[in-house]
Amino acid sequence: MLIGAQTWEFRSKPAIIGAATVVGPEEGEGPLSHTFDFVYDNLEIDEKTWEKAERKLLEHASALALVHAGINREDLSFFIGGDLMNQIITATFAARTIAAPYLGVFGACSTSMESLALAAFLADAGGARYVLAGTASHNCTVEKQFRYPTEYGSQKPATAQYTITGAGCAVVSTEGSGPRITHASIGRIQDLGVKDPFNMGAAMAPAAADTLVSHFRDTGRKPEDYDLIVTGDLASVGHAIVKDLLDKDGVPMDKTDFNDCGLMIYDRDKQPYVNAGGSGCGCSAVVTYGHILRKLKNRELNRVLIVATGALLSPLSYQQGESIPCIAHAVALEQEDNGR
Amino acid sequence: MLIGAQTWEFRSKPAIIGAATVVGPEEGEGPLSHTFDFVYDNLEIDEKTWEKAERKLLEHASALALVHAGINREDLSFFIGGDLMNQIITATFAARTIAAPYLGVFGACSTSMESLALAAFLADAGGARYVLAGTASHNCTVEKQFRYPTEYGSQKPATAQYTITGAGCAVVSTEGSGPRITHASIGRIQDLGVKDPFNMGAAMAPAAADTLVSHFRDTGRKPEDYDLIVTGDLASVGHAIVKDLLDKDGVPMDKTDFNDCGLMIYDRDKQPYVNAGGSGCGCSAVVTYGHILRKLKNRELNRVLIVATGALLSPLSYQQGESIPCIAHAVALEQEDNGR
Repeated sequence: MLIGAQTWEFRSKPAIIGAATVVGPEEGEGPLSHTFDFVYDNLEIDEKTWEKAERKLLEHASALALVHAGINREDLSFFIGGDLMNQIITATFAARTIAAPYLGVFGACSTSMESLALAAFLADAGGARYVLAGTASHNCTVEKQFRYPTEYGSQKPATAQYTITGAGCAVVSTEGSGPRITHASIGRIQDLGVKDPFNMGAAMAPAAADTLVSHFRDTGRKPEDYDLIVTGDLASVGHAIVKDLLDKDGVPMDKTDFNDCGLMIYDRDKQPYVNAGGSGCGCSAVVTYGHILRKLKNRELNRVLIVATGALLSPLSYQQGESIPCIAHAVALEQEDNGR
Repeated sequence: MLIGAQTWEFRSKPAIIGAATVVGPEEGEGPLSHTFDFVYDNLEIDEKTWEKAERKLLEHASALALVHAGINREDLSFFIGGDLMNQIITATFAARTIAAPYLGVFGACSTSMESLALAAFLADAGGARYVLAGTASHNCTVEKQFRYPTEYGSQKPATAQYTITGAGCAVVSTEGSGPRITHASIGRIQDLGVKDPFNMGAAMAPAAADTLVSHFRDTGRKPEDYDLIVTGDLASVGHAIVKDLLDKDGVPMDKTDFNDCGLMIYDRDKQPYVNAGGSGCGCSAVVTYGHILRKLKNRELNRVLIVATGALLSPLSYQQGESIPCIAHAVALEQEDNGR
């Protein structure tokens, strides 16, 4: 149910009863490597096109998530998915394989939490028994679509982010056990006029700040009520900005562990080609469904807030001189027996 | 709540308390002209690019829908929207103007009913007070993106459909009066291997048939329980096919008025350039929120089922030789005092 202006509180606390993450070789060289279920050793993901590779990642992660949840495809009420590709073909073609009723969503890199929030809402309100939420990104599909042909090998500024190759999926249900989804805050578009697609972090930071402030206002919670708060993929530039913005908004983040999935997924010293850090639909998905779920399951973390950010530009809107509208959706997770 | 495999029954029967339709000059020459709230006299919609034109249509329709609902932007809990553009920039940039918390969705031309179904679910389950659902399409944005530059003036086969220029928006709430939303059936991907983007109707027909059969199975209803059943935009080729498919599935449609928004919006004799009929995200939206809502309000119709269809291809998936995955989402509407 709606509490405050833009937050859902899930009374039944639906569980993530199974999840899975599948990544490419570069993510497999990062510090979270051990938290992923499968690491491909080739960027082609054994496919002939980058688009087929991205689809395979999502199909692989969704199949594993069902195994981990102990259910079959036929048990799914819905698949909610989306991705960065034009007309979200990755999610759609995966939905053809998954064969469940399908709700396509788009929030760029916020798709991970948009899909998880909707899945939790449907399960909590009796609108679904089992819902699969998932998303994926591939470095090379995104590069060729949003920036330049990969063969150009064009150089990038230090503010640029590196789209991660990976897919993350979760099965949500009020039946079964696992980390619980307690709240979701749906974001509003924020656009402060940034036009540089090589500085997404700066464009997205105000959206993350707005959703965080709204979440705390709607729930009455404070930053220190969470053991960990992660933004989606602001990386080094955007994450510094969001801290400043929150300070100015009177919500200092120094009493909790405040991190960013785009900073966590790579070792920027050993992997300097990622520049400011990771991004892409898969970024917050694989960090959440890999690293964070593990920490919640083994009780190293009690309560976590994930604020996935999305830069909702298209190459065409950029070419026509438009700025980059951004959004952020937040989902609060708790370890299973917290307050139950 | 979920009934059967893929249908939501809305116990509170949320109302469409206000809606609006805005179209281009060609739709203004069609037989439903008098049902639209505003008809632009120029295809440019007084803008400098086709994309800005499409966005303006959606912004205009959303503003009018709020006026008709008697609420302000600030009263909106959420805006749920999507469109055919890459990264759904039409809905996103309109969401920046609307300024409400935003859930981006993508179902190609099924977006009209995907957004309406989710809006009704959120309102029914206490997850929103007022939800705006809306979508738009513009003939020239879609032509240049999916087919050829409009300046080519390329010829088309008779099976091709004509993307309508228009936007339709609805405000959904459990508070207030208007036609009621009683059920929604969420579709599964159907793909029978059609690869021809100039024959979308044939590609989409199996999806419409599957969702219709599922809707009748889940609800226990029959075709004759509806005064009117409309498919989204199958046009002449697809609509004939879906009738055949339903006959084979044992669901003959000859006991109800069975039509298609793509056939209703144009006069194909006087407007032969539309070939098989209309299509596009705006097609089922403007026919539903214009023509059908009027008939429900003045009691000419009692109960209507809208089955919006979507062809979920991208130019890239087509170029890579993929077939066209399709989907259909159905929403059942009733006149206000039906069974209350």
